[in-house]
Amino acid sequence: MIYLDNAATTPILPEAREAFSEATELFANPSSLHSFGYKAKCEIEKHRQSFADNFRCESKEIYFTSGGTESNNLAILGALKAMRNPKKVLSFAFEHPSVLEAVKNSGVKCEILSSISQLENALSNDINLVSLMHINNETGEIYPINEIYDLVKSKSRALLHVDNVQGFGKLPNIKADLISFSAHKIGGFKGIGGLYVRDGVKIKPIIFGGGQEQGLRSGTENLPLIASFAKAAELAFSSDISKVIELNNIVREELDGVLISGETCSPYIINLRFDGVMGETLLHCLEQHEIYIGIGSACSSHGAKASETLKAMGLSSKQIKESIRISFSPQNTEDEVRAACEVIKNEVEILRGIKR
Amino acid sequence: MIYLDNAATTPILPEAREAFSEATELFANPSSLHSFGYKAKCEIEKHRQSFADNFRCESKEIYFTSGGTESNNLAILGALKAMRNPKKVLSFAFEHPSVLEAVKNSGVKCEILSSISQLENALSNDINLVSLMHINNETGEIYPINEIYDLVKSKSRALLHVDNVQGFGKLPNIKADLISFSAHKIGGFKGIGGLYVRDGVKIKPIIFGGGQEQGLRSGTENLPLIASFAKAAELAFSSDISKVIELNNIVREELDGVLISGETCSPYIINLRFDGVMGETLLHCLEQHEIYIGIGSACSSHGAKASETLKAMGLSSKQIKESIRISFSPQNTEDEVRAACEVIKNEVEILRGIKR
Repeated sequence: MIYLDNAATTPILPEAREAFSEATELFANPSSLHSFGYKAKCEIEKHRQSFADNFRCESKEIYFTSGGTESNNLAILGALKAMRNPKKVLSFAFEHPSVLEAVKNSGVKCEILSSISQLENALSNDINLVSLMHINNETGEIYPINEIYDLVKSKSRALLHVDNVQGFGKLPNIKADLISFSAHKIGGFKGIGGLYVRDGVKIKPIIFGGGQEQGLRSGTENLPLIASFAKAAELAFSSDISKVIELNNIVREELDGVLISGETCSPYIINLRFDGVMGETLLHCLEQHEIYIGIGSACSSHGAKASETLKAMGLSSKQIKESIRISFSPQNTEDEVRAACEVIKNEVEILRGIKR
Repeated sequence: MIYLDNAATTPILPEAREAFSEATELFANPSSLHSFGYKAKCEIEKHRQSFADNFRCESKEIYFTSGGTESNNLAILGALKAMRNPKKVLSFAFEHPSVLEAVKNSGVKCEILSSISQLENALSNDINLVSLMHINNETGEIYPINEIYDLVKSKSRALLHVDNVQGFGKLPNIKADLISFSAHKIGGFKGIGGLYVRDGVKIKPIIFGGGQEQGLRSGTENLPLIASFAKAAELAFSSDISKVIELNNIVREELDGVLISGETCSPYIINLRFDGVMGETLLHCLEQHEIYIGIGSACSSHGAKASETLKAMGLSSKQIKESIRISFSPQNTEDEVRAACEVIKNEVEILRGIKR
């Protein structure tokens, strides 16, 4: 198998698996009063500290959730709930559904922009929250979050939330009030994510109960998933991006498709298309060779929606359907990527009728 | 170690661990379009079916969540969101915080009763939702859900939600519109729970995004946790309750404390007290022997709140502080329970100053 759909989810790193397995020994409820529970609680705080150290923030600014979707919902709905009479939220048509649907269901007026170039004019003192992803999950485009943070702060009193599921541990940290991340995009398990809430930013829970996670996320604390997420984050933050850049370059050199991803995109994601070849057809041809790639975003259970990202880039409906997404992990090898490119070239020729 | 705090959380069953581990091989995103993702999706539906078969319902009535707390929140907040102008919710002071806090934060008027004997008078056509647990997590008291279902339906148009975290897979199934359960109380992992929504009952999501779980719970589907939950449920539903009854009887025979749990309680939980001995002190004495028990509920991160259950039973504040909870799993042995009883008897005598 050659797995090149790492933007959808990654295989589990052996070290993350080991951290999980080891932590299951300390199975007590971390809220139990006895020493066995207290030990589990202490372990969680140790992992939270390690996580915060890697992310370069205070441990009290890190909240664990059930995943990226919940983190995005908590950031948006929770921040708006903590405001008195919020007026308006800004977000973007190319955001992940967990951002867009949270914004649309928040009960607060929202404006969905199609490009970041529209942001400056849309900002005003009536804007309470801006939600923008760091890395586009379809093209790998890197949005200039630090500049946008300064812009948002200079033109409004809004909070900036960043969905950093595709950038966390992969690209340099960014400046924002609220930052979402997920374990299963960096070699951790599904079912665990996190939210950074800058010290001083007010946010209210969306799930209520026993008051775990400083009152922000109730529910029995999950030591095994937290331990494995902290380990995966540690490895991600210390991983060598040059290897992924090399893999990305191989695809750019070997395949003669039309590049959709620009030169300044995250090296973890490359989006391209082959004229006259439907992406979905190519994807199914490749799966016959146990080569797995993506088209559009896999984060929705109804994959049919046309890509807003590609639409905003001016691609025609036909061109959008031709697009494929290849996404890497640091565990992919050059040999794998070269082998996949060979098969892709061959299948494209067959599909174009050049070869049979 | 002798672990007798199974109402707080249970050790992980080897079979559940194996199901988890095996399922991690199929790590693809179940929403990915390629065959690897589709295989993961099919596995999830297979496990949902097995789960539903054990629970004796339709698979489409089962929704997986991140745990019992989220299930309770989804049931209460989601059902109220689906109603036009809901007027009032009824619940009980002894409910788990994830029920009480969800009710109190729903934005809908609520009345919190202290006893089920007050229910009949409180019911009217203005009541939209009643939330009542099946098994009291402190005393093991079994509430007569099937009778209460009939009462609720005869006196109102309300939905009945049941927090069945302590009864699921342990006691006979019950009749309700919405039923919550959790994996880590039956030998599964933390981080996964479920909600039964009777076919025809309308409910809206509280977490928004890609529309997974029939649109009710967005977020990447978690095959490993679902597989292990289905396995734990299968084992729970086929487990022999007579063994747990036997363990419970040993405690009733061996210990001469004042029983708080009545005769008709769930055999999985026994609550008792020793005059003049603080429960918390006894708990810490027992942890020196690596014997772990509970006091009150461990599901809150602030354990200090006095038990509403015991208060409603007429216990004095001193008596409430004396109460301890011993809770079993089918994996506990008679030898463990007898050994724990010996240590408890000894520690009680030391604490009472009879022995040193």
